[in-house]
Amino acid sequence: MRLFHNDYNEMCHPAVLRYLQEISSRQMDGYGDDDCCSSAAERIKALCENDSLSVHFLVGGTQTNLTVIAAALRPHQAVIGAESAHIQVHETGAVEATGHKVLSLPSADGKITAEQIRNTAQAHLDDVTHEHIAQPKMVYISQPTELGTTYSLAELEQISQACKQYGLYLFVDGARLGYALSAADNDVTLQDLANLTDVFYIGGTKVGAMFGEAVVISNTAITEDFRYIIKQRGGMLAKGWLLGAQFEVLFKDGLYFEISKYANRLADKLRDTLVELGYPILVQCRTNQVFTVLPNTVLQKLEKEFSYAPWGTVDDNHTAVRFCTSWATMEDSLDALCDALTKITANS
Amino acid sequence: MRLFHNDYNEMCHPAVLRYLQEISSRQMDGYGDDDCCSSAAERIKALCENDSLSVHFLVGGTQTNLTVIAAALRPHQAVIGAESAHIQVHETGAVEATGHKVLSLPSADGKITAEQIRNTAQAHLDDVTHEHIAQPKMVYISQPTELGTTYSLAELEQISQACKQYGLYLFVDGARLGYALSAADNDVTLQDLANLTDVFYIGGTKVGAMFGEAVVISNTAITEDFRYIIKQRGGMLAKGWLLGAQFEVLFKDGLYFEISKYANRLADKLRDTLVELGYPILVQCRTNQVFTVLPNTVLQKLEKEFSYAPWGTVDDNHTAVRFCTSWATMEDSLDALCDALTKITANS
Amino acid sequence: MRLFHNDYNEMCHPAVLRYLQEISSRQMDGYGDDDCCSSAAERIKALCENDSLSVHFLVGGTQTNLTVIAAALRPHQAVIGAESAHIQVHETGAVEATGHKVLSLPSADGKITAEQIRNTAQAHLDDVTHEHIAQPKMVYISQPTELGTTYSLAELEQISQACKQYGLYLFVDGARLGYALSAADNDVTLQDLANLTDVFYIGGTKVGAMFGEAVVISNTAITEDFRYIIKQRGGMLAKGWLLGAQFEVLFKDGLYFEISKYANRLADKLRDTLVELGYPILVQCRTNQVFTVLPNTVLQKLEKEFSYAPWGTVDDNHTAVRFCTSWATMEDSLDALCDALTKITANS
Amino acid sequence: MRLFHNDYNEMCHPAVLRYLQEISSRQMDGYGDDDCCSSAAERIKALCENDSLSVHFLVGGTQTNLTVIAAALRPHQAVIGAESAHIQVHETGAVEATGHKVLSLPSADGKITAEQIRNTAQAHLDDVTHEHIAQPKMVYISQPTELGTTYSLAELEQISQACKQYGLYLFVDGARLGYALSAADNDVTLQDLANLTDVFYIGGTKVGAMFGEAVVISNTAITEDFRYIIKQRGGMLAKGWLLGAQFEVLFKDGLYFEISKYANRLADKLRDTLVELGYPILVQCRTNQVFTVLPNTVLQKLEKEFSYAPWGTVDDNHTAVRFCTSWATMEDSLDALCDALTKITANS
Repeated sequence: MRLFHNDYNEMCHPAVLRYLQEISSRQMDGYGDDDCCSSAAERIKALCENDSLSVHFLVGGTQTNLTVIAAALRPHQAVIGAESAHIQVHETGAVEATGHKVLSLPSADGKITAEQIRNTAQAHLDDVTHEHIAQPKMVYISQPTELGTTYSLAELEQISQACKQYGLYLFVDGARLGYALSAADNDVTLQDLANLTDVFYIGGTKVGAMFGEAVVISNTAITEDFRYIIKQRGGMLAKGWLLGAQFEVLFKDGLYFEISKYANRLADKLRDTLVELGYPILVQCRTNQVFTVLPNTVLQKLEKEFSYAPWGTVDDNHTAVRFCTSWATMEDSLDALCDALTKITANS
Repeated sequence: MRLFHNDYNEMCHPAVLRYLQEISSRQMDGYGDDDCCSSAAERIKALCENDSLSVHFLVGGTQTNLTVIAAALRPHQAVIGAESAHIQVHETGAVEATGHKVLSLPSADGKITAEQIRNTAQAHLDDVTHEHIAQPKMVYISQPTELGTTYSLAELEQISQACKQYGLYLFVDGARLGYALSAADNDVTLQDLANLTDVFYIGGTKVGAMFGEAVVISNTAITEDFRYIIKQRGGMLAKGWLLGAQFEVLFKDGLYFEISKYANRLADKLRDTLVELGYPILVQCRTNQVFTVLPNTVLQKLEKEFSYAPWGTVDDNHTAVRFCTSWATMEDSLDALCDALTKITANS
Repeated sequence: MRLFHNDYNEMCHPAVLRYLQEISSRQMDGYGDDDCCSSAAERIKALCENDSLSVHFLVGGTQTNLTVIAAALRPHQAVIGAESAHIQVHETGAVEATGHKVLSLPSADGKITAEQIRNTAQAHLDDVTHEHIAQPKMVYISQPTELGTTYSLAELEQISQACKQYGLYLFVDGARLGYALSAADNDVTLQDLANLTDVFYIGGTKVGAMFGEAVVISNTAITEDFRYIIKQRGGMLAKGWLLGAQFEVLFKDGLYFEISKYANRLADKLRDTLVELGYPILVQCRTNQVFTVLPNTVLQKLEKEFSYAPWGTVDDNHTAVRFCTSWATMEDSLDALCDALTKITANS
Repeated sequence: MRLFHNDYNEMCHPAVLRYLQEISSRQMDGYGDDDCCSSAAERIKALCENDSLSVHFLVGGTQTNLTVIAAALRPHQAVIGAESAHIQVHETGAVEATGHKVLSLPSADGKITAEQIRNTAQAHLDDVTHEHIAQPKMVYISQPTELGTTYSLAELEQISQACKQYGLYLFVDGARLGYALSAADNDVTLQDLANLTDVFYIGGTKVGAMFGEAVVISNTAITEDFRYIIKQRGGMLAKGWLLGAQFEVLFKDGLYFEISKYANRLADKLRDTLVELGYPILVQCRTNQVFTVLPNTVLQKLEKEFSYAPWGTVDDNHTAVRFCTSWATMEDSLDALCDALTKITANS
């Protein structure tokens, strides 16, 4: 069985494991107060071209989202996100468990717009009963989104401007950030993210690391006492250097971007095949997630050898599905998938 | 100025104040452990024809909603409600502040259906990643709804059945319950509510009391330790008998129903006038809230003498508005409003 | 039976009820946006000689404590209080339910000292692992304390200075504030409280009102969006003018101080009797709570006519007890209690 | 510099890293639904001789504590622990951030007694105002405690019985459990823990793993929906097999016990040396933490080569300190420490 149902089915890029092996006999101080974390933070700040950033390493995405939001918001404040946002649908109410409401905006492609944000914030201000309504204070977007789509630089700039206009924090979830930054149609840089957001994170778990997310904070209101919040929410890893070390590797010699680019190329190849075979691409994007609709008869044959993630029933005979590539996807596996799709389609 | 913008602009029905005066020199035990509360609870249980119910008195609606939900749900569980539900839009994220998500269902008229509930619960069960999604565990509806509409007995029975099928608690917010139970088209009784729900409350604040909501619990899983939760959430009134005493009066000789009926009759009268004048009734109902759309030119004249609640901009020249009647609305005030509407319309 | 077990066994001072009767037919706007609240706030600000204060009216003490603390603290911050503090022992974990730890300081008489506060704050700073420890950020004291004792002006000044030195908010719970301000040995004024604290409240429930606590905030960091927090925590009374009206009466012509003084005088009388009879005064104070130890044989006879609050078992034959006086305690009731104590003691 | 200040300064036991290397190219399902986790859980259940246990793997100790407590308690319920309990003093209020109070019991040696537990629970029941007090519902103890002391089987049985008598959950934090189970004076087995507790955990982070704690639940009231709570609190590791794999190694051929025994032996050696040199052993125990008091003049010389954890100022000239050994402490390092202590003492 070759797995394509998500992008975290393999342990980590060999270079990461090799480095952990290398440093395995060192004695280190705990809780992220170590050379690996400092060094990784320095590399990230250098790539962001901003030395005043505050960089923290956490283990996973949900943990990162809830920690950032708990640190940033006062009790009556809410975070705005797309209706398909990870914090809205796939974190078992983790944000609400910190006490905060997630305000949901309609979105067909996983993205929200500066206009939607302005309308939401303005509607709150305009409402004479606004003290009876949770106050929008943060905008949460993902780059790429849950559907693999990405914001252009122009879109991010507009969103950032809307946030500034209304005093909202801008928080970018970059659980798969590498795939966005390395997409064929990308025009956004790490510097842009550091400039335009109050806080964002660079995902490791889905981009070559065993685990780990690097939080990059530019707004000092969020930075203050951030480590207290990490500890309180259970996110402070005793052997913190495990996180720093992985990001050291990922950001040495551009490995993070290289492996993302590789996965995107394979995804593009799969998209091309699907188009040739006449299958729809559900959301247009150039990142590592491929969404399409396939006949159930095709899927029944395909799934003997290839895993995929079901993404919803379209009708009695068709199912929406997702394929993911990653740094670990072997090109011959991808080719085998494309071949199988072609053959099964021809025979059906 | 005659106020029609909501139904809590007057202190309380004279009989309530009179009774408070009467008992004002008695010494009572605190925290609801007194004769007034016992007596009021007995009356409510008798009206519900169920002696095993647990009745508690709280001060206000938001407090009641958050206390009931905090008492009923485990941390990962969510409450289902209409997109216009009070807990969703008008309580400053009070439910989320207890840690729980509110799952929003689309609704044009403030009501949700048994089918929507079953679909939501079934979708959760069907999702293989359901542990990553807040678990639906309670259904919250209002009787009447935010828009004055009411559930028929048949609808409530269907909803109750859907809840039982999926192991969901059914919670009915009755902040304006009197107006529903006394509506011209009502076929629901207090006994029905006690039978069909796990917990509901009988609103006093908007139906003749100074303040106060009577929570009626039939499900012992919610009853257990409920008073601890009331105290913890700040809802335990030191002089609890003030609440009991008001409900004693409201449920003596049918006062609660009598004053609701009166307010509904005035609302019906206003609806008739609007229809005659050719104005639309936005949501059809027979309770004390009247929703219509009026030309801004009419409103500008009207608002010199009569207050109303703006309910949304329709277009550049029209506004949706709400008028409320209550036990305190004098018939000649209502007649004056109808007359004014007629005259202004004629002259415009 | 004459009740002395607490000071909230009577509805309210007759002047309060009379005024509510007077204004009962007025139409008012909801949620504290009314003339009564404005007028009461103005009176309180005038008495505090500070026009920039922010005054809010809430229904009860636990509600007020949890609302103020939720508004003031970030998630990792804790509030320091005496081990016998109301928030520590008698609010069912209401503060913890807002997510905050209560740091407990030893106290024999219900009071804590500036030195204890400085030591706690300094210990936190000195600890190299302080990010693993909840951060002290607020000091909570009661005036008078749970044991009826009071802080002198000098003590309050020292505490305030310690708080300023360490960046801690000072919050004074004044649920029985009148009794402190009117005690025979008092040298603290409302102006002092407004000057020395970040936030304090003036209790109504136990000092002549039906219910109600007036929160007085001088620190704008706490004021900001305070009404959102009130609403979210269920403390925003729909008919808010009920609160304002009661404080209007209490602060008209010094009623609040007059009735406190009266209750204190009766308590002093009881203390004198106890001393004469050779019973110990457990904590020395001049406010309305009297703590002593009585033989169980005396209590068994006494309790046929007089209620008291048991305060702990001393030994097999003796019990610590509390007697409370209030505005509502009739002087002949107090005299009857003193007489009964004298007679029972003589016969035992 | 040789580090003795804690027991998590090294990455992991070589066998753990070797095994991760071995399985690094396997494709696995996420979130703990994999063969490594199943296999590790089976081994643990076999060692506990109880096949009905529920075993879950989390990343760290604070995360585990807060997740278990959030899963087990209703909002008004509190957890009882020693005043020095990790949840009380070293988790930045993580438990309170889940909404629950930690009730603190005095303890000189880190342990609490069955009698203390019974007294606390009984006092709650006896208090007529118990609804105003957080309800004790869980007992939290550590094995070994923060001070390295351990409960004997007899003590655990008494505590378990007290908990059953009062309907309290018993939760044992075993962050360093290996060191307790392998102590020279131990008479407690994993089976005992499974039998006597409702939930306990087996610490990996401090006993040979990179990270990881294995939660073992016998009470189905806590098991139910436990994975939802893990996810909601940010503790569900995407590549969950990393946790399972580490516990597979630790519980293969008794590695977990072997390395604990080794560390304990070194600690015993250090204790012997200290005693010989006339230094006090602050708390008597046979686990891997050694607490003593040393002259500051000795420490100043010692700390040039050896790290230790300061544990409090004794007087101007003496400091309480902790030394930790672990699986990674080399015997010659320990010998060097003993030699240094001997020499420095001789010369001072």
